[in-house]
Amino acid sequence: MKKIVSDYRSVTLKDVAALADVSVMTASRALRTPDRVSAKMRARVSEAVQALGYAPNEAARALVSATSSTIGVLIPSISNLVFVDVLRGIYDAAEQTPYQVQIANTRYRDSKEQELLKVFAAQRPAGLIVTGVDQSPETRAILSGLGCPVVQIMDVSADPVDMMIGFDHRRAAYAATRHLVDQGYRRIGFIGARMDPRSQKRLDGYIDALTEADLFDDALILTSPQPTSVALGSRMFGEFLAMAPDADAVFCNNDDMALGALFECQRRHIRVPGQFGIMGYNNIEYAAASAPSLSSIKTPCYEMGQGAVQMIAAAARGQRPEPGNVDLGCQLMPRESTDRGAGRVRAAG
Amino acid sequence: MKKIVSDYRSVTLKDVAALADVSVMTASRALRTPDRVSAKMRARVSEAVQALGYAPNEAARALVSATSSTIGVLIPSISNLVFVDVLRGIYDAAEQTPYQVQIANTRYRDSKEQELLKVFAAQRPAGLIVTGVDQSPETRAILSGLGCPVVQIMDVSADPVDMMIGFDHRRAAYAATRHLVDQGYRRIGFIGARMDPRSQKRLDGYIDALTEADLFDDALILTSPQPTSVALGSRMFGEFLAMAPDADAVFCNNDDMALGALFECQRRHIRVPGQFGIMGYNNIEYAAASAPSLSSIKTPCYEMGQGAVQMIAAAARGQRPEPGNVDLGCQLMPRESTDRGAGRVRAAG
Repeated sequence: MKKIVSDYRSVTLKDVAALADVSVMTASRALRTPDRVSAKMRARVSEAVQALGYAPNEAARALVSATSSTIGVLIPSISNLVFVDVLRGIYDAAEQTPYQVQIANTRYRDSKEQELLKVFAAQRPAGLIVTGVDQSPETRAILSGLGCPVVQIMDVSADPVDMMIGFDHRRAAYAATRHLVDQGYRRIGFIGARMDPRSQKRLDGYIDALTEADLFDDALILTSPQPTSVALGSRMFGEFLAMAPDADAVFCNNDDMALGALFECQRRHIRVPGQFGIMGYNNIEYAAASAPSLSSIKTPCYEMGQGAVQMIAAAARGQRPEPGNVDLGCQLMPRESTDRGAGRVRAAG
Repeated sequence: MKKIVSDYRSVTLKDVAALADVSVMTASRALRTPDRVSAKMRARVSEAVQALGYAPNEAARALVSATSSTIGVLIPSISNLVFVDVLRGIYDAAEQTPYQVQIANTRYRDSKEQELLKVFAAQRPAGLIVTGVDQSPETRAILSGLGCPVVQIMDVSADPVDMMIGFDHRRAAYAATRHLVDQGYRRIGFIGARMDPRSQKRLDGYIDALTEADLFDDALILTSPQPTSVALGSRMFGEFLAMAPDADAVFCNNDDMALGALFECQRRHIRVPGQFGIMGYNNIEYAAASAPSLSSIKTPCYEMGQGAVQMIAAAARGQRPEPGNVDLGCQLMPRESTDRGAGRVRAAG
């Protein structure tokens, strides 16, 4: 098991040639212009390549051919489940293309995003997918200078760096809150963690709907900069009830938070949806599976990921999509956790 | 918004020089040896770099300096929550180093893993982290030829490609199943989805414990090749009850599946843990937050990610860690969902 650092030496074409017992020139020819060497020679070189795990240094080729075959993806979080569906869409679409996918995590930090963009830039990506529309001017400048198609996802704006595919969080949150009003809830709170720009827009949509219904009360809003989690949802729901004991419903800024609120209701024997309504956001897969099932907003995560890759592939073929700025909309998913209007009251606690 | 493909041109040093109104030579000197130009010149060039978002082409430098500053990470799934904690450990440790992290998803396919390894190899990574110990001989050959430190994570074996940090799934699953036996459960089933090599080892550990207790019955085992999810956990738990109506407990191959089983119990008004015990695996954050809370096995995911980066950083400094093969062990987390032995029976449905 002992190994010294000098062992970390790349396998070179010279190693391949030596093992195949041919000249370096022949080995190179067998790999680059296989029709110019004999079948026997090809087989010998190919065997040596397999045995040694030789990977030709494509950095040299990337220098010449201007771009690699990689689509870079910058997301702000790996633990936020919403990106799981985005990435699934990206991977499914990429498999229909010659592109490989590499992901990097900005951890919600602009400086980290800029560092990572420089790493990707040096690799000459075929395209780049970045999260959100609220990049700093410095980040926008780097993106514009990349020399490859760039797609911003997860949000909408009138001013894309290049292309954009997303949906309107403010409108989505308006629909979620409006649904609670329509179900007869009157003291509707907002619980939000990790208040990134997209969650801020959700808070705006919540305020729109309650102001319109003349039900707005800022004493019903509880936010935190902490990362979202089910455990935090439970904890913040407890704080929320202490702060607003007469509340009868809550719109959570994502499903993790809503599931935490639901568990806390069960622990406190608060009946959902009879005594209390809970609304999530993103329609993570467990929303339909939980007991009671969780009302949510189905955001087009898979479709955004898929669409972004398709836009890059089209642009790389010289067929840049028009429009290059797409609003996919979203969908209200009413389920048991807010089903009071229909008269069916189901115990959950 | 209209843009044509020929716009996708990288910003070059020439563009920077033109905007700064200096020669290319001066611009280059200002960037590479700033102490050799005047402060005024440095400021002008730096301003142009910012304005244009210029990123120097490090592919050229990587060719010369042999490696880039990137640690590549290959994981088989983005949707499996266990990798969230692994990645958190990787990112936290990487921030203590000069390295950036790039992730790629093999989707549990050996051919995909080989393709991605070639992409990483061409980028001359500073180190590579790969999942599992069951790589094919071809993949092992590629890994050996990379010329950089490689760490296998998530499992243990006596034969690492280079370095390894993980834990023993068979022993962990033995402890989980043994706990159910100790709590007085007698008809203990196994529900497992996406039966990858590590889940197969969990099944082996389950069989070890029940054979030892003279309780083994292969009619209590239900597996599926489908990806794990909470919804699948509910569905398979329903099938399991139809297949084994006298079962009184289940060990699920991860927490998503266990949470799905718990929700299904609540829908069917089966009391957990009184009538039925549920044991998860991985100790995902919601295990402690759910109602009732979910017993699980705390696997050292964060520590594996962190340790892998530290091993790479040490090896790159010429201080390869000894031993280079680490078994971190794991921890039983007994909670409400199996708490029958203590006599406290808590209704959950």
